[in-house]
Amino acid sequence: MLELYHGGPGANSLKALLPLKEKGVEFVSHLMNLLQFEQHEPWFVKINPNGQVPVLVHDGRVLTESTVINEYVDEVFPGVPLRPADAYGRARMRVWTKFVDEYFCPALSFLGWHAMIRTAVRNLSKEEFEAKIARIPLKEQRDKWRESAAQVWTPEQLEDWRRKVRASIQRMETGMTGPWMLGDQYTLADVSLFSMLIGMPERYADIVNTRDSPRVIEWYTRMMQRPAVQATMAIPRPSREFLEAQQKAAAAPRE
Amino acid sequence: MLELYHGGPGANSLKALLPLKEKGVEFVSHLMNLLQFEQHEPWFVKINPNGQVPVLVHDGRVLTESTVINEYVDEVFPGVPLRPADAYGRARMRVWTKFVDEYFCPALSFLGWHAMIRTAVRNLSKEEFEAKIARIPLKEQRDKWRESAAQVWTPEQLEDWRRKVRASIQRMETGMTGPWMLGDQYTLADVSLFSMLIGMPERYADIVNTRDSPRVIEWYTRMMQRPAVQATMAIPRPSREFLEAQQKAAAAPRE
Repeated sequence: MLELYHGGPGANSLKALLPLKEKGVEFVSHLMNLLQFEQHEPWFVKINPNGQVPVLVHDGRVLTESTVINEYVDEVFPGVPLRPADAYGRARMRVWTKFVDEYFCPALSFLGWHAMIRTAVRNLSKEEFEAKIARIPLKEQRDKWRESAAQVWTPEQLEDWRRKVRASIQRMETGMTGPWMLGDQYTLADVSLFSMLIGMPERYADIVNTRDSPRVIEWYTRMMQRPAVQATMAIPRPSREFLEAQQKAAAAPRE
Repeated sequence: MLELYHGGPGANSLKALLPLKEKGVEFVSHLMNLLQFEQHEPWFVKINPNGQVPVLVHDGRVLTESTVINEYVDEVFPGVPLRPADAYGRARMRVWTKFVDEYFCPALSFLGWHAMIRTAVRNLSKEEFEAKIARIPLKEQRDKWRESAAQVWTPEQLEDWRRKVRASIQRMETGMTGPWMLGDQYTLADVSLFSMLIGMPERYADIVNTRDSPRVIEWYTRMMQRPAVQATMAIPRPSREFLEAQQKAAAAPRE
């Protein structure tokens, strides 16, 4: 039996969903609302002590970390191979997936939290918010949520994360070696990068656009045409729906 | 032909050296003095545009990132396998190597630079130092070197990095499942962690000791008994020798 605990098609959850869809692997989907902090509830922390999604459970064995999960899925399940057949190709692929995890994703994640969290927690009292934060297992996560909710980040910090996002896009633009990141084969490098890129041509149009990153835009268009990507993007994303409802409520005139 | 550019047996260079020695792979060794910034010289930046070691060059193909290099070496060369034979075991191993790269190593690295760099650059004028910094390709590295040389980090920052180092050791202590990190097989998880642990029972005796981390100490002792570890530790480490000479000069009475 194969189960995926995830937040729907965004960021690291999107990263773990795509290979399963590309390879046509059946799995039980456990959709969670990350902006209502379901991933920190005691039942889930029993599954992943770090309180993070995605988590893959395969015949009772728990796998964490989307990048690690994806190599596992490609090793274990049949279907289209998502890693190069040669060791040097796999090394090149891993330099990209590592770059996403260590540089691109953290910068984008800080910007995302800064933009979203105030709206996400607007209905919580200070005490309710603190109670939610107190349950988060990782100190780094507690700090990030608390600081972003308090909007303490300086314009310099926000600009530095934007600089890193811009540098990531330029690295893609110059590093792409064919229709896909590594050339002719679609790999986990594309999967990792796309899980960050999703929505960026709209939300970060000053960074991802046909003038500054034409090859990235063309690649993004190719990605969006893949049936597995379309099937994945059709999965609900509870945190986004929740956020949109909160935004609507915030914009409505008060009675 | 196989060549390794490295700084000798410490940190990420040690990480890349160990598997080659464990597997008995012959290679041409290019030893560099990292505290004299050889890795930022134009000839080397042509090889790795990030200006970082270790770099493996295999039949003209350049491989960067020690964690990626190690999986490549294990895939390509004969000798003792350093990754579990099953996909789940490899996933568990990668959670550890990823943890080292994303959490343990950065914290330890900041503490190391803070402790070393002032002594390392004591003979450079302000202009010479700035010229060295200006050549560093990565902004994050330039910032880190400049800030650590100016000793701008607050006691709170230093204590937070120590907290992370302590948390890393405790994660090892509770996560170890046998004589080696993953049980009976010695793997790249041991290699990655050991490349951080080396010297810590002396330099961080308040964190790594028989009372707080007895299993880590026993594991460290087992590691030090491995012939490949001993052969690797016998390789010179130019940055350490350079630092010790600088320290001696700093301590000498001025004429």
